[in-house]
Order: sequence, then C-alpha cells, then structure tokens
Amino acid sequence: MSTLWKSRYAQRTLGIKSSAIRELLKVTQNPEIISFGGGLPAPDVFPVKRFEEACHKVLTEQGAQALQYGATEGYGPLREMIARNIARYGILAKAENVLITSGSQQALDLIGKLLINRGDRVLVEAPTYLGALQAFNVYGAQYVSVPVDNDGLITEQLESCIRSGVKFMYVLPNFQNPAGVTLSEGRRHQLIVLADKYGIPIVEDDPYGKLRYEGEHIPPLVVLDRQNLRSDNGFTLGNVIYLSTFSKTLAPGIRLAWIVAPEDVISKLVQLKQAADLHTSTFNQYVAYEVSRDGFLDRHVKLIRQVYRERRDVMLQALHEYFPHEVTWTHPQGGLFLWITLPEGSDSSELLPAALAENVAFVPGDSFYPNQLGANHGQEGGRHMRLNFSYCQPEQIREGIRRLSVAVKMQLRSAHAVQ
Amino acid sequence: MSTLWKSRYAQRTLGIKSSAIRELLKVTQNPEIISFGGGLPAPDVFPVKRFEEACHKVLTEQGAQALQYGATEGYGPLREMIARNIARYGILAKAENVLITSGSQQALDLIGKLLINRGDRVLVEAPTYLGALQAFNVYGAQYVSVPVDNDGLITEQLESCIRSGVKFMYVLPNFQNPAGVTLSEGRRHQLIVLADKYGIPIVEDDPYGKLRYEGEHIPPLVVLDRQNLRSDNGFTLGNVIYLSTFSKTLAPGIRLAWIVAPEDVISKLVQLKQAADLHTSTFNQYVAYEVSRDGFLDRHVKLIRQVYRERRDVMLQALHEYFPHEVTWTHPQGGLFLWITLPEGSDSSELLPAALAENVAFVPGDSFYPNQLGANHGQEGGRHMRLNFSYCQPEQIREGIRRLSVAVKMQLRSAHAVQ
Repeated sequence: MSTLWKSRYAQRTLGIKSSAIRELLKVTQNPEIISFGGGLPAPDVFPVKRFEEACHKVLTEQGAQALQYGATEGYGPLREMIARNIARYGILAKAENVLITSGSQQALDLIGKLLINRGDRVLVEAPTYLGALQAFNVYGAQYVSVPVDNDGLITEQLESCIRSGVKFMYVLPNFQNPAGVTLSEGRRHQLIVLADKYGIPIVEDDPYGKLRYEGEHIPPLVVLDRQNLRSDNGFTLGNVIYLSTFSKTLAPGIRLAWIVAPEDVISKLVQLKQAADLHTSTFNQYVAYEVSRDGFLDRHVKLIRQVYRERRDVMLQALHEYFPHEVTWTHPQGGLFLWITLPEGSDSSELLPAALAENVAFVPGDSFYPNQLGANHGQEGGRHMRLNFSYCQPEQIREGIRRLSVAVKMQLRSAHAVQ
Repeated sequence: MSTLWKSRYAQRTLGIKSSAIRELLKVTQNPEIISFGGGLPAPDVFPVKRFEEACHKVLTEQGAQALQYGATEGYGPLREMIARNIARYGILAKAENVLITSGSQQALDLIGKLLINRGDRVLVEAPTYLGALQAFNVYGAQYVSVPVDNDGLITEQLESCIRSGVKFMYVLPNFQNPAGVTLSEGRRHQLIVLADKYGIPIVEDDPYGKLRYEGEHIPPLVVLDRQNLRSDNGFTLGNVIYLSTFSKTLAPGIRLAWIVAPEDVISKLVQLKQAADLHTSTFNQYVAYEVSRDGFLDRHVKLIRQVYRERRDVMLQALHEYFPHEVTWTHPQGGLFLWITLPEGSDSSELLPAALAENVAFVPGDSFYPNQLGANHGQEGGRHMRLNFSYCQPEQIREGIRRLSVAVKMQLRSAHAVQ
C-alpha cells in the first residue's frame, strides 16, 4: 500500500525540496546555539498585553461573530483599516482592493496558482526569498534571475531578461530578504517603465517596508506604477500586485497578511482562496483589528524600529571588529537581514558545520538562488551567508558574530593552505 | 492594463464557478430571511467564555511562543491530543500521523494538489460536498459519481465506476453533506474491499462524526481499512486519508482541522503546506488546545448534540406538518443537514426566488453535483433542496418550514396546472 502512495504522487514531489532553513531550525532548537538562521521577529517585542486586551474585548463584545465563518475577502473593518494605512504611503486603494490572506506565504501561493502554468518563466532577483521559490515551484515555474547589488535589482540587465519571455516579475524592493538591500528610486522607475513597455506584471513583496532604520522612504512600485499610468481612474488599472503582512509588525503566529491589487485581480484571487481555505481565521482578524486600532500599530512599529536598529548596529559593529578584511557585508537600511560575501572560492555550506561546532548558525547563500537551466548559482551562492539580526538579544549577537568569525577565519586559513 | 490581467489568467478561471451558496449568503444578510442555506454552526453554542479563559492563559503563560512562527506539521501537544482522541474510535494514529490544517478546506486543497493531475478522474458521491468539488476543480479534476440512497453511497454501482479509471475516491460516510445520509457498515466493508482490490486511495471526510443524535456509532473507513489489511504494523500502511475538524465542535472561525494519514503521505503534505501557508496559526492552535483539554471538548460536544438534535426534530416535525405528501426527505442520524426530494420534474432553482419572496432560503440541489461529461445531473439536482438545521433557533425553524411549504405548494400547483 505504501508503494501505492509513492507511485501516485511521485511526480508531484519534483521541484519541492525540503527547505534548508527548515532543517536548520531543527538543529537550532539546541539552546546553546546562537541562531542567525531563521527570519524570526524578536518575541520580546510581541505586544502580548495588548493582544490579551483585544481577545477579551472581541470575545466579550463580538464572540459569536468572531468565532463564526467569515467572508473569503476578509473582515471588512480590517480591510478598510489597511486601505487607510497604506494610503499614507500613496497607495490609493479601497477596501475592495484588499484581500486578507493566511500569511504572505498564502499570497504567494495564490499568485502562483493564478499566474503560473507549468514551464512559465518567472523573473526573480538573485538572491531572492526562498518561500517565494517554494510557492512558485509547486506550479512548475522556471526562473530567470537578475543579480542585485547595493541598490537592489540591477535594472541594466533587466530588458534582455524580460525579452527572453517572462510571465511576471517577483521583486522585494525594501531591505530585501536575504540580501538586505533596497531598490533605489531611479531603478524603481526603470523597472516600472520596462514592465509597462513589455506588459509584464510585477509582484511587489513588501513585508519589511515599515521597518526602516535610516535613510528616506522610497515610494513603492505600486505607487510609481500608477503615476506612470497618469490615470486618476481609481485603483482599477495597474500592473503591480502589492503584498504586505502583520507578521513583522504585530506577530507572525496570527498568520495575517494582505494583497492589494485591481478589483478584477482580487476577485479571481478570492475564488482561488475560497477553494484553498474558505477564509482566513475570523477570530484573528477581529483581534488584529482591535490590537492595531487607535494608533497602536504606529506606536508599536516605532518601538520595533528602535529595538531592531540597535541590533543591526550591534551586528555591524561586531562584524567590523571580528571579521577578517577579505569578508564584506551589506549595510541594510531596514528589515531583518544582512548578507555576507566571502572571498571567491569560499563555500558557505561547508562553513555551516564548522559554525555549528562553534554553536552559531546562519543560512548558506545557495538556498536563495533558484534552480535555473543553464546557470550555476552554486558558486555564487557559496560565497554568501544570510544573517538575521532581529531575533537575538544584542549581547548574543556580539557573541554569535565572534563565534562565527572563528569558523570563518578557520575556513579562510585552510583555503589559503590549499592554494 | 486591465485586459493584460484578463488574458493572463483566463485559463485559470475555467472550472471555478462562484459558489451558489456564497451568492446566496449575501442575500441572506437580510435579517427578515430565515436561512436554511448556509452550513453554519449555531453561534449560541460557541464556548465563548472558555475561549476567553484559554486566550488569557495562553497569552499570560506562553505569549511569546504562541505569537511566533511554528512548525508546519502543527503544535505538538495538539497533534498528540487529536491522536489520543481519535484512538477512542479505533484510529490508531501517532502524533506523527496528524497534520494540522487551516480548516478542512485546506486539507482538500492539499490533497488535490498532491494527487490530481489535470484530467484525472475523482470518484465522488452524487450529491457531494460542494467545497470538495471547488478544491479539486482548481487542479483540473474530472468526476465519476455514484448516487447515494438512505444507506449512503450505493456500493453496488461502485465497481464499474472504479473500472472506468479513477485516481481516488472522496467519501463522506457520516451524515453526509448535503444529503444527511450515513454509509452503512456493510457498504463500508464493500467499499474498503474494492478500494483494496483496485488499489484506489480513499479520502474519508468526517467533519460531523461526533455529532450523532441517534443510532449506533459505525467504525470509520480508516479503521475498517486497517482491519482489512490484518496488519499490526502501526499506522504505516493504509489506503485511507482521514479528515476531521474543530469547526463543528468548537468554532469555525479559528480555522482548525486535521489530516490523519500514513507518515510518508503526511511528509509530502507537509511540504505542500509549507509552500501554501507555512503553517496554521500558532495562536489558534495553542488556544484550541487549552479550550479542549481536561475533557472540555467531550462535555461540549454533548451539549451541541442536545441542541442540534432538538433542532433536527423540530425541522422533521414541521416538515411532517406543513409539507405536501408528494415531497420526501432524509432522516439524518446526525450532522447539520437534511435533503428534500421534490416530485419528478420539479426545479428547486426556480423554487428559490419564490422561497426568498416568502423570506426563507435554502440551497438548490444542483449545486452539489459535479459537472460530468456525458451526464446530466441538472434534472436530478433540480428535484432536491439542502436544508441546514443547526443554525436557526427552533421557533425560526418551524416558521421557516411553514414559509417554505407555501413556496413549495405554489410550485406544485403551477406544475399540475401545466400538466
């Protein structure tokens, strides 16, 4: 019987490899290990007390509705709050343009389901968010990738990639996961113009947009796209699907995110979501609304920015102190991650066991490059490590970077010895 | 731009029709209307107070963990509790055989994603659960259907259908949605034997199993399957994927359900779930565990049984009093629904506007039959109505049936007049 199952779903497991991060997280259950591996928010900034008050209020005043089935689109007042909130960043959406999803991962899954036919090419950054690759892989996506530098996606290389034939582009403009870099305003304009010229939709993933620790806010692609269209026709046109989430500003355990898109796109996504999970937890939506309201979300985001900015600074300072000069890293203006570049010929996957032996964890760079026909990202990925700076306390960060530097120096020495 | 979107996802919208029930629910927002249309649990039996205590306890004692990311498989103690709980029904599963899903709809979606390749045939009951058809349609399922009578799926017609080539069978053995009928023990054995003979997996959907109001418990297919295999080899073999949910015993608004399957099937489903939504809300899982523990779930299910049994009885009594003798209905031993059969030539879709004019709603039968090549279920579906008896108060049920009888009698008279 067991072989029956195996033969029946064999073809469906192609393209889904168990996540390296996932396996890694198992190792890092060990409390001795300082982990820069996950992408976890700091639990010490979860607004637990506010959640408790919100649960009490919701259950006392609206218990019957909050525990009942709800609309696939999401809880009306929450959709309206999100629309008001993003209007401050120039995204002129109505509640009807907002679909509540069970985390951003579901948003990526629904978009993959809607747009990807087996073999379709998706343009992504190299490196890019692993979860997006996992979501799109299920639908048989192929990838065309464009490298990033300190100003994000290198748009100079974009047009030839687009011409090779792509279904849509998936881009993380702010404090990108994993590289921590931000797409410059000039390049955002170039991206929009090219997307428009070739009629290629953009999926703009913006989970960290509010978590900026320095520098000026840059308008999201969805706003520049509308300006480019020179239309006052409400949010009915547009080439961009915009994603964001409560996971990094309130808490990931409530699994609440949202998609902003033209109404006809939303209505297709609603049909797919209905078939996928009927709707996102009513209770969590009521609670998140209660938690966020009356300006709490804004105040809380300020607190998170302070805490994470300090941790980023501690990590940057420790890297400066402990790491050898051949190693470089990005200077993220926000978000949760920074990206280490080792000397040519390094292999961060080989470095990982040495780091774990020193009781420190990271994610090797090659996890963040898509499998791509005719391209070998193994070498490029091998030069990189992703480090998360949001989860650990400052003193742990310092100690973790010291430990990691021991492993890095050891690998560099043995590489020199071989040469 | 808008046309761009349209052309890009045109092919993906095939096979997904907006749910009739969904559209109906919009109409029934009108408080004047007594709705037997939805499949909603009674909000008056939601254990609101217990939820409040559980939220308080979870946030006070485990706030940081409950609001953080969690494992894709689900919260360990909840998986263990479910394994213990189903063991009482003879399902000898370990926690490793249990995957927590974001409602049963997600379980159906993941199973469709795992098993269905475009054009594959799925064997379903006629009528069957609409949500399953919606989930499977997305993956391009074709259907082979077997009619049900008062003892459930007519297994005498099963073998020839199986021989026509099916990928798996989707069956609701207990108090089936929509027909309210229960598969007899004899037929369960026949089904298992045939599934084994032809090597066809069974997806056993059991959302209502605990809500039995009369008669004896019948062992689930997953138990009979193991007995048939005569193996003591733990839960590593087996031809059945078993689904159940907290939606009908605690509350649907928390979106918590589960899949029980052999470990190698679970591990494939975990990969797909990780790509679909990372994991189900950690917070909701902690809260559901706290709500359920210490025997509360059992006590609460007893209360629900009392309340729903009374409502079923009131509906049966009112049907007996008000409905003309040409109309028949099922006598469900549990669950949430009963199924009306109108005289030949009736059209329940035409009846719906007349019923709404009387301020009462139901779901026309044709929603529950799959589109099937070479078969016309329109006529069969037209003879049926699904009525929900869990949602309305007893006095509303009586009044609603009276109103519905007015519309029914009117339609029967005009049919006679035509003849």
